[in-house]
Amino acid sequence: MAKVSAAKFALGIDFGGTTTKVALVGGDGAIQARSRFDTRRAGTPEAWVKAVSGAVDKVVDRAGVRLDSSQFTGLGVGAPGFVDFERGYIYDLPNVPGWKGVSLAEILMEQFGARAYIDNDVNAMALGECTFGAGRLYEHAVFLTLGTGVGGGLLIHNKVYRGAYSMAGEVGHMPIRMYGAKTHIGRGTVEQYVGNQRIVERTLAALRKGRASIIPDLAGGDLAAITPKEIAMAAARGDELGLEIFDFVGDCLATVLTGVVFLLQPQAIVIGGGVAESGSVLFDPLTRHLESRLNPVFFERLALLRAQLGSDAGMIGSATLALLG
Amino acid sequence: MAKVSAAKFALGIDFGGTTTKVALVGGDGAIQARSRFDTRRAGTPEAWVKAVSGAVDKVVDRAGVRLDSSQFTGLGVGAPGFVDFERGYIYDLPNVPGWKGVSLAEILMEQFGARAYIDNDVNAMALGECTFGAGRLYEHAVFLTLGTGVGGGLLIHNKVYRGAYSMAGEVGHMPIRMYGAKTHIGRGTVEQYVGNQRIVERTLAALRKGRASIIPDLAGGDLAAITPKEIAMAAARGDELGLEIFDFVGDCLATVLTGVVFLLQPQAIVIGGGVAESGSVLFDPLTRHLESRLNPVFFERLALLRAQLGSDAGMIGSATLALLG
Repeated sequence: MAKVSAAKFALGIDFGGTTTKVALVGGDGAIQARSRFDTRRAGTPEAWVKAVSGAVDKVVDRAGVRLDSSQFTGLGVGAPGFVDFERGYIYDLPNVPGWKGVSLAEILMEQFGARAYIDNDVNAMALGECTFGAGRLYEHAVFLTLGTGVGGGLLIHNKVYRGAYSMAGEVGHMPIRMYGAKTHIGRGTVEQYVGNQRIVERTLAALRKGRASIIPDLAGGDLAAITPKEIAMAAARGDELGLEIFDFVGDCLATVLTGVVFLLQPQAIVIGGGVAESGSVLFDPLTRHLESRLNPVFFERLALLRAQLGSDAGMIGSATLALLG
Repeated sequence: MAKVSAAKFALGIDFGGTTTKVALVGGDGAIQARSRFDTRRAGTPEAWVKAVSGAVDKVVDRAGVRLDSSQFTGLGVGAPGFVDFERGYIYDLPNVPGWKGVSLAEILMEQFGARAYIDNDVNAMALGECTFGAGRLYEHAVFLTLGTGVGGGLLIHNKVYRGAYSMAGEVGHMPIRMYGAKTHIGRGTVEQYVGNQRIVERTLAALRKGRASIIPDLAGGDLAAITPKEIAMAAARGDELGLEIFDFVGDCLATVLTGVVFLLQPQAIVIGGGVAESGSVLFDPLTRHLESRLNPVFFERLALLRAQLGSDAGMIGSATLALLG
């Protein structure tokens, strides 16, 4: 873990498509104050920066600090899309209209008179988890977040590794089935099997074939209301279909992680996001399949960890960009 | 490319299961003198070090240099097996009897009074190619060598990346088919489809089914004499079976490289080894499949290169370990 003086502090901005969350984070990784606003109401980059400014005023006030303090190291932003970290530049945020080609670091530096860092949201979460969360004891780690897709971030020597052009870490796009279906991203990618919607589709297909399961009951009898959460709940209660679905998800993740581990040999893999919050329902089959797929020399040296920072990971990680400088 | 003064020189030792090759290599990457001996005749680590010593005397004499010169930066060894680079320690060389648990760097330092570096043979080749060969213009590159298996080496910021425990870069063990056959290494790994023997087996299976092809003729009518070389020759002459086999090999490699590129986003991939020497017979289908499998944002920024140092890569790369220090 990279060491930061506890007296230092930074602002962490988790720029989500729906909500933007702003926190004042100490050098120990603890959130000292937080605020949030509706991203969709701030319809332009200018309006968004203004809303950030208002949120910053609140958290600075609540935390009782001053931004002209020598302990203030700057701002970090984790944004949901394509970002050039070196230039602090946003190429495109596919789910946030109006954010194409924005020199955000420059704008924020002017606004706050402090250093500003812009990274991809998953990289920021990875840095947070591997500095202050589950991966804090490891120098080389891989972070995954499971949700609509599968996001990935790489930590090498305690630093985010972004590859040659700021876009490395796309674990979700890695293929697990050579002849799997083609999309505009790739072919047979792990995301095509374990993205939230794919998990639900797989479950619905089995139910429609007449499989007995408590999953529909857990969703109030409404098939359209089924999410990975109900499937995980069913699995935790021993429901055969639920267990089968999570066994498959664990095996798909084990397949892609086998490749990641043979290639990078990290010390730890940290997994967060919705499906990971179901805990052992996912981690038990994942561990079993990983052990069966991976050479023991690699498996025995690998720590498989559940993320610890939950939905704060984005804010803490974004602030960490500025804390580590 | 990392810069080294051309006046400096180092000894590069390519420790093969059959032959050990020793070269004196200048700071410009050029071999100034070379020697070799039969590894199997040097039956113990002691006998091997003695044979190295004899070979070193020869190359030093031929090159007209002295090892007490301030321009001599040390020795590097590329060994065929499991190595701890940090400690200069050989865990095991599966194909060289008697080499389990040898502190080789220590022994060589004592013998030659100079710094000694021990790395895995593929890492050494990767470093050679990416410092003085095909990858010299790139800071972030992935090296593959095709042969009995598929070896891999990672260059990150011009340095070999060895992962947490010195064993990273095992591209050959990465899975491309989730439900492929299981071996003691992994399941559905790319090596299981494109290793030399697998290429030959696939060809023989087609021939036995009665496929018309010029491949048997190229092997003198002896099916047992078919190697990937005859298959490549046939493909180069437009033989349908030969083309089909290389199309499949290219597609398997494209599948695994898609994963590598989404994960690491290197600037270049450098490919060497027997099958790669067939040139466009391999690179044409590989490029085509890579373009079809990879998102354009990643494909367009990627250089796919043929290795340039041939069978000297091991010696040059091993010496580079000492030249870069």
